[in-house]
Amino acid sequence: QRTGIMEAILAEGKEPEDVVKIAKAHVDACGRALITRLNETNVKLLEAAIGPEQLEWGKYKKTVVVHNGTPVSKTGGVVAIISAGTADITVAEEARIVASEMGCETIAIYDVGVAGFHRLVGEMSKLQSHKPDSIVVAAGREGTLPTVVSGLVDVPVIGVPVSTGYGAGAKGEAALLSMLQSCSVLAVVNIDAGFVAGAFAARIANSVARARDGKNRETQS
Amino acid sequence: QRTGIMEAILAEGKEPEDVVKIAKAHVDACGRALITRLNETNVKLLEAAIGPEQLEWGKYKKTVVVHNGTPVSKTGGVVAIISAGTADITVAEEARIVASEMGCETIAIYDVGVAGFHRLVGEMSKLQSHKPDSIVVAAGREGTLPTVVSGLVDVPVIGVPVSTGYGAGAKGEAALLSMLQSCSVLAVVNIDAGFVAGAFAARIANSVARARDGKNRETQS
Amino acid sequence: QRTGIMEAILAEGKEPEDVVKIAKAHVDACGRALITRLNETNVKLLEAAIGPEQLEWGKYKKTVVVHNGTPVSKTGGVVAIISAGTADITVAEEARIVASEMGCETIAIYDVGVAGFHRLVGEMSKLQSHKPDSIVVAAGREGTLPTVVSGLVDVPVIGVPVSTGYGAGAKGEAALLSMLQSCSVLAVVNIDAGFVAGAFAARIANSVARARDGKNRETQS
Amino acid sequence: QRTGIMEAILAEGKEPEDVVKIAKAHVDACGRALITRLNETNVKLLEAAIGPEQLEWGKYKKTVVVHNGTPVSKTGGVVAIISAGTADITVAEEARIVASEMGCETIAIYDVGVAGFHRLVGEMSKLQSHKPDSIVVAAGREGTLPTVVSGLVDVPVIGVPVSTGYGAGAKGEAALLSMLQSCSVLAVVNIDAGFVAGAFAARIANSVARARDGKNRETQS
Amino acid sequence: QRTGIMEAILAEGKEPEDVVKIAKAHVDACGRALITRLNETNVKLLEAAIGPEQLEWGKYKKTVVVHNGTPVSKTGGVVAIISAGTADITVAEEARIVASEMGCETIAIYDVGVAGFHRLVGEMSKLQSHKPDSIVVAAGREGTLPTVVSGLVDVPVIGVPVSTGYGAGAKGEAALLSMLQSCSVLAVVNIDAGFVAGAFAARIANSVARARDGKNRETQS
Amino acid sequence: QRTGIMEAILAEGKEPEDVVKIAKAHVDACGRALITRLNETNVKLLEAAIGPEQLEWGKYKKTVVVHNGTPVSKTGGVVAIISAGTADITVAEEARIVASEMGCETIAIYDVGVAGFHRLVGEMSKLQSHKPDSIVVAAGREGTLPTVVSGLVDVPVIGVPVSTGYGAGAKGEAALLSMLQSCSVLAVVNIDAGFVAGAFAARIANSVARARDGKNRETQS
Amino acid sequence: QRTGIMEAILAEGKEPEDVVKIAKAHVDACGRALITRLNETNVKLLEAAIGPEQLEWGKYKKTVVVHNGTPVSKTGGVVAIISAGTADITVAEEARIVASEMGCETIAIYDVGVAGFHRLVGEMSKLQSHKPDSIVVAAGREGTLPTVVSGLVDVPVIGVPVSTGYGAGAKGEAALLSMLQSCSVLAVVNIDAGFVAGAFAARIANSVARARDGKNRETQS
Amino acid sequence: QRTGIMEAILAEGKEPEDVVKIAKAHVDACGRALITRLNETNVKLLEAAIGPEQLEWGKYKKTVVVHNGTPVSKTGGVVAIISAGTADITVAEEARIVASEMGCETIAIYDVGVAGFHRLVGEMSKLQSHKPDSIVVAAGREGTLPTVVSGLVDVPVIGVPVSTGYGAGAKGEAALLSMLQSCSVLAVVNIDAGFVAGAFAARIANSVARARDGKNRETQS
Ligand SMILES: Nc1ncnc2c1ncn2[C@@H]1O[C@H](COP(=O)(O)O)[C@@H](O)[C@H]1O
Ligand SMILES: Nc1ncnc2c1ncn2[C@@H]1O[C@H](COP(=O)(O)O)[C@@H](O)[C@H]1O
Ligand SMILES: Nc1ncnc2c1ncn2[C@@H]1O[C@H](COP(=O)(O)O)[C@@H](O)[C@H]1O
Ligand SMILES: Nc1ncnc2c1ncn2[C@@H]1O[C@H](COP(=O)(O)O)[C@@H](O)[C@H]1O
Ligand SMILES: [Mg+2]
Ligand SMILES: [Mg+2]
Ligand SMILES: [Mg+2]
Ligand SMILES: [Mg+2]
Ligand SMILES: [Mg+2]
Ligand SMILES: [Mg+2]
Ligand SMILES: [Mg+2]
Ligand SMILES: [Mg+2]
Repeated sequence: QRTGIMEAILAEGKEPEDVVKIAKAHVDACGRALITRLNETNVKLLEAAIGPEQLEWGKYKKTVVVHNGTPVSKTGGVVAIISAGTADITVAEEARIVASEMGCETIAIYDVGVAGFHRLVGEMSKLQSHKPDSIVVAAGREGTLPTVVSGLVDVPVIGVPVSTGYGAGAKGEAALLSMLQSCSVLAVVNIDAGFVAGAFAARIANSVARARDGKNRETQS
Repeated sequence: QRTGIMEAILAEGKEPEDVVKIAKAHVDACGRALITRLNETNVKLLEAAIGPEQLEWGKYKKTVVVHNGTPVSKTGGVVAIISAGTADITVAEEARIVASEMGCETIAIYDVGVAGFHRLVGEMSKLQSHKPDSIVVAAGREGTLPTVVSGLVDVPVIGVPVSTGYGAGAKGEAALLSMLQSCSVLAVVNIDAGFVAGAFAARIANSVARARDGKNRETQS
Repeated sequence: QRTGIMEAILAEGKEPEDVVKIAKAHVDACGRALITRLNETNVKLLEAAIGPEQLEWGKYKKTVVVHNGTPVSKTGGVVAIISAGTADITVAEEARIVASEMGCETIAIYDVGVAGFHRLVGEMSKLQSHKPDSIVVAAGREGTLPTVVSGLVDVPVIGVPVSTGYGAGAKGEAALLSMLQSCSVLAVVNIDAGFVAGAFAARIANSVARARDGKNRETQS
Repeated sequence: QRTGIMEAILAEGKEPEDVVKIAKAHVDACGRALITRLNETNVKLLEAAIGPEQLEWGKYKKTVVVHNGTPVSKTGGVVAIISAGTADITVAEEARIVASEMGCETIAIYDVGVAGFHRLVGEMSKLQSHKPDSIVVAAGREGTLPTVVSGLVDVPVIGVPVSTGYGAGAKGEAALLSMLQSCSVLAVVNIDAGFVAGAFAARIANSVARARDGKNRETQS
Repeated sequence: QRTGIMEAILAEGKEPEDVVKIAKAHVDACGRALITRLNETNVKLLEAAIGPEQLEWGKYKKTVVVHNGTPVSKTGGVVAIISAGTADITVAEEARIVASEMGCETIAIYDVGVAGFHRLVGEMSKLQSHKPDSIVVAAGREGTLPTVVSGLVDVPVIGVPVSTGYGAGAKGEAALLSMLQSCSVLAVVNIDAGFVAGAFAARIANSVARARDGKNRETQS
Repeated sequence: QRTGIMEAILAEGKEPEDVVKIAKAHVDACGRALITRLNETNVKLLEAAIGPEQLEWGKYKKTVVVHNGTPVSKTGGVVAIISAGTADITVAEEARIVASEMGCETIAIYDVGVAGFHRLVGEMSKLQSHKPDSIVVAAGREGTLPTVVSGLVDVPVIGVPVSTGYGAGAKGEAALLSMLQSCSVLAVVNIDAGFVAGAFAARIANSVARARDGKNRETQS
Repeated sequence: QRTGIMEAILAEGKEPEDVVKIAKAHVDACGRALITRLNETNVKLLEAAIGPEQLEWGKYKKTVVVHNGTPVSKTGGVVAIISAGTADITVAEEARIVASEMGCETIAIYDVGVAGFHRLVGEMSKLQSHKPDSIVVAAGREGTLPTVVSGLVDVPVIGVPVSTGYGAGAKGEAALLSMLQSCSVLAVVNIDAGFVAGAFAARIANSVARARDGKNRETQS
Repeated sequence: QRTGIMEAILAEGKEPEDVVKIAKAHVDACGRALITRLNETNVKLLEAAIGPEQLEWGKYKKTVVVHNGTPVSKTGGVVAIISAGTADITVAEEARIVASEMGCETIAIYDVGVAGFHRLVGEMSKLQSHKPDSIVVAAGREGTLPTVVSGLVDVPVIGVPVSTGYGAGAKGEAALLSMLQSCSVLAVVNIDAGFVAGAFAARIANSVARARDGKNRETQS
């Protein structure tokens, strides 16, 4: 496995039958396979071909882990995933599951609205009590939430723009640009790129966890 | 005067000598003349040609009112102008002076940073005590402030994107798009269009003031 | 309810069954629920689940209010909604219904063509007799109408670009840009954002109405 | 001379000394030379090298005709050029001078504001009395004027977007897109392309004039 | 009828049943109705509702004229329509039928490829023998053909970009930009706007025809 | 100080005299002040006003630290900064100095060309021996280097697009898009945003360093 | 046949029945016909109408050659086609088949990942042993592979961006821009334009082959 | 030297003094140095520091070769460079000089206008008599010329868009897009990238020349 990152199967643009086959081959080889950007046909074929005890679905079934019972080996890293609206949850889930498959404990907070800043401040201090090592924040429309969160914490925050909205700046464009222009310290991934955000957050968390364990970071051989 | 809006002289794209001449003609005809988007040459020529007691400068001298002592007749409307950063002040000033010339009392709050949300909430309740009839919020970079302000008040809030920032979404593009995508109820004007924002806010405030005075809105003759 | 704005359910991007459920819950909690951007499936499911006396449809059934008989409490504000072509009506209706749900009397003028300026001038003076407190103008293609209307009245005019047209500048882009560049005093919302336009216009109208009633604007608690 | 079009010298992007040389060569060969998009250096060098009686300047000196007394041979075609604002005049002048050099009588109407539609309608009927064979309309900002004019006449109207404005849609972009999306029958040339507009309008007017003279259109040899 | 232009029914964005109804009403009122941008459902419903002798289809059935036997009154104007590829024909047909409905004789040349310039030159001189008063050239991909044609004739040439191609500049964007940048004298309409091109070309041709008939251009009443 | 980030003075868009004043005030208050995006006037005024022993310049003098002898307190975090070409160095320096001011040890590798992949692989294993906690990679033109580096290491890599190149995709656009589309796990900041990249990398490194020290991450009070 | 290039039938935008007819006519006239950008309906109709021994399919059946047994006459030119991911193969196949139909020997290497640079270097030296005369490299997402390949060989390399990816720079835009900005010597064709890339590579290879055969390049008659 | 390409010094973005130093170092090391994208300061400093017999300037002095008498070793490859307008010549010269430095004989044809197709056809057959191995065509505005040339010859043609024009599609954008959409077989480089075009053309010509010499292509060591 290359430099400590989860390999995943991108269902989009592949024949649904091929997705099932590739997933089974991955599971046979590695014990677990992550599949992202599923459509309804993918879901049906996977449910027909694989037993429910071997399928761990993300919320709204856009992401799934297929496994043969092989567990993920825990790293001790902690990743929080925050989102504001219903439409952001599938992207947040993609990030959460990737981080989880990379060995991290994950904390999902999916009901944080920017509208009510009072409430946000309250929840942030609650979040702090979990001491996450890194935070992914998914946000569509005008993409404000990552900026706000990064101003309230001192761990690295990764913004993921979500392809929502209509009109000018729709499909995540306004969110991406406003994260890139953010006055907070924020790193960004592409629109809907929950996978990259989750893997990047897990890289951070796993580095911190190794340090916590007194281990030196393993040099790549 | 057309439908209750301030006519102004846009200095940009005119010969500086012509700007002085046009301004003097305006003052002779109407008593007062507003000039916007001044550069340094404009400032020098105006200061050379016109006595200081006849010049009311906006902060940073990008906007000026030339007058012969004729006062503005007050309407009783109240317009607040809010901005977050130093770079936004010239645009905020353009809006403030237009609203003032249209007869409104203006309240300028130019030190509200998005970074510190605790402080913002405090200042907002202070702002409320002034009971503005409308609020202009100028913001560059990612343009968050108008969204936040509109979520905290119940009077109309007009967002003005400011042409700051570098890289993708620079020059006010991210700010404009994020205001258009805002989850708050927000009306928007073009990038740096302090003039339009101030005139629009004054239209609202003057409508409310007329109603407060028990007057019917004057129909256009 | 946050700062005097209508909460609405955006049908787009939600499972149609969920839309029905959420709407029913809203009605149980608040008496009335507004749903926007309906498709045909939404319409069918709503008609199957809810009695016709509890459904108030916008023209072309893209917007609906579900209610249990609870009336809207009237504010005395007056909002006019103007559009030019058939294609602009669904967006205009979204604006009208939001303003109506926020307590305003609404005046819909949907047959004003820019083509015939003589006729337009006639209708504008007729409009003036209704003394609207604010005006929403929906326009697609090249989006001229809001500019023209704003030049003829002295109340605030909000332009809503509509996603019509084909070729360069299609889908409301030309209309948005031309409203942002307008020489008239105009505030703008995003393409097809009838909801924001209607809520913004109602905010203005309700402010004026409160002033007319001699009431001070209610401070947010 | 190719298919009845004026050849012109584009000053922009050429060494000012070369412009003078090329112009003189043209005059020696053809009697007259048209130069467009002059800057201040061009103007100075031309005035130094060529007598004033041999120079016919456009308003604001962005366009000039150099000649040795050779007159233009009149075709009888009539071209009207209309513009709305000060900033549009240099582009309008470019169109006017090209049409004039191609033998047309030209009518320049440079003070038509879109703001006052009543006045516009009046001037249009006045314009009609000149019976122009084609009309060029130059307009910046939101570019409304060509649409309005084309709705009031039955001769071909050519819209020229002008590179004015700031913010989104600036530099003629909004004007170009709104002319392309226009509901009127309008043909368009590129932003600031007064030359093309004037030449195209003259082609039309000269065709009509030939027909008026009972001449068949001359076939290209 | 407004200023001598064909009114047409744009089928796109209307319910197919409504298109039939509107068309019938037009025919009852005016004798003839032009419908553009038809899809397959439109075609089926029209064929079911209206007898074949009352339907004049454009090639590929994207445009149709419905009539009750009322003929078009001929003006004597002559419009040529040229296109290069199969994909351009539907747009060319829209232009041709509009011009025909506006009383012009039309000449359609749909097999002119840019590839073979030798052949093009031959066909152009053949075209000249028809003495068209104006020429519409439809071209997709890189949109070269209008530039070439305009360099070979001395009548006005209108370019219509066609929404073909894939990759960068696809859907007519490269064609539109290259026509706007053309070194020839060319006026342009929006991508796929055969309607506008045809109506504009007919305006020219009808002006010329009136002059040929010794008639003054009819002033608009 | 807010959530452990360096505050810096953005020289761009401020009067050079003001930059000196603000910097001095910062130094008086905090001991050290970082100034970014300097131009030549800034450099001159700073050198005139402040002694050389109080100025630590970045390479090419686009970034400077002003201080009164107060040292940075070291965190133990290690940040590597990599760039490929001469043009990328000023951006890389901005990142390096921010990370250094935030207490990190920094390793600058500015001579890594993508051209020679053999050499790159060699240098990467050398880099690994420094065991950086995070890596910033600055790259212009097509922005390949961050993708390549991230594929070779297992610590978090942050890509900074640099505004180089000419033609399509120039000024960092191609670099930004290609980093967002990267097949490697990469987080991105805006074009030329060395400041954000350095601060983000330092946040990571400082988190790891705290863990290494057996300290819990300090919760924000 | 025009200047030594394959004529092909672009299935996209043609009626599937017409594609079959046109193909049969081509085969009758020339012996062989290439059809590109097939969809599933095209495939079905072709398989129904034409015997399998007369159909040579590209991988994934997006491209096909129909023939009546007439062989391609071999030129001796050698073209290599390289791609990185599954999604790039259909575009690579289009290039390969065109080059093959133009008489070249083709070498397809479709499993070269940018991720593993060690492996790439290995495969490149293997590729060199085939001594291709030109190389087509198809790459989507961030489009790195052509840059890398061109840095490792001394024959002409043509990059083809592939329309993969989501978010900013998706559908081949990032790949196209990064190839245009490449620091290597690279010529580019449009997104997904395998046809053009293959034909261009074959032009090169056939030129080299002619030179190898001691033949002068045939002048066009 | 890497894979047979000319290394050049890009003057743009370097201090003019540094350009002189780097050039001298190159000449000392290799005998010859190519410098591109010179401005007037570069020219002055180079002429002051280096004797005229050691400087070979491109037309308009945007490109120069500095040498100490060391000759280029000729390959026998032949590259033609064609351009249409004055503005395209500096880009064409950059391509020509690179090809020349890479050992090719170069043929420059800089007076080919698209306007006169008759003349073009004549010149093309003359060009054919030189039997170039590859052709670079530089074209701005609408970028037609490379398409036309490629349709007339059977050697590889590389299009270089030139950053001319104003308005929509200016600065080479229309030219780039129309070359990418071209119906001819054309490979493209970035706007103004004469360097890449010349180097690519020389790669082709040198491959053909090696084959002509009966030599196998030299494998990279
Ligand atoms: N800063 C500004 N932004 C937008 N419009 C302006 C500005 N300043 C003046 N204007 C308006 O621009 C129009 C043209 O101004 P002028 O060119 O001075 O006649 C007038 O209607 C002014 O009211
Ligand atoms: N294909 C078309 N392109 C542009 N405008 C059209 C087209 N077809 C009809 N129109 C015009 O579009 C306007 C609106 O049409 P309708 O929506 O049918 O009332 C009318 O003025 C028609 O003349
Ligand atoms: N996939 C393709 N991409 C680009 N051009 C193509 C493709 N397939 C065919 N062509 C060319 O497109 C032109 C028009 O094709 P057609 O519409 O079939 O006459 C012909 O010159 C073909 O050689
Ligand atoms: N005009 C040019 N366009 C594109 N690349 C160039 C140009 N001139 C020089 N180069 C290349 O740019 C790269 C960086 O140049 P330098 O910054 O001088 O080291 C080298 O690989 C040069 O070969
Ligand atoms: Mg958000
Ligand atoms: Mg802001
Ligand atoms: Mg409109
Ligand atoms: Mg205008
Ligand atoms: Mg074409
Ligand atoms: Mg790079
Ligand atoms: Mg790639
Ligand atoms: Mg050209």
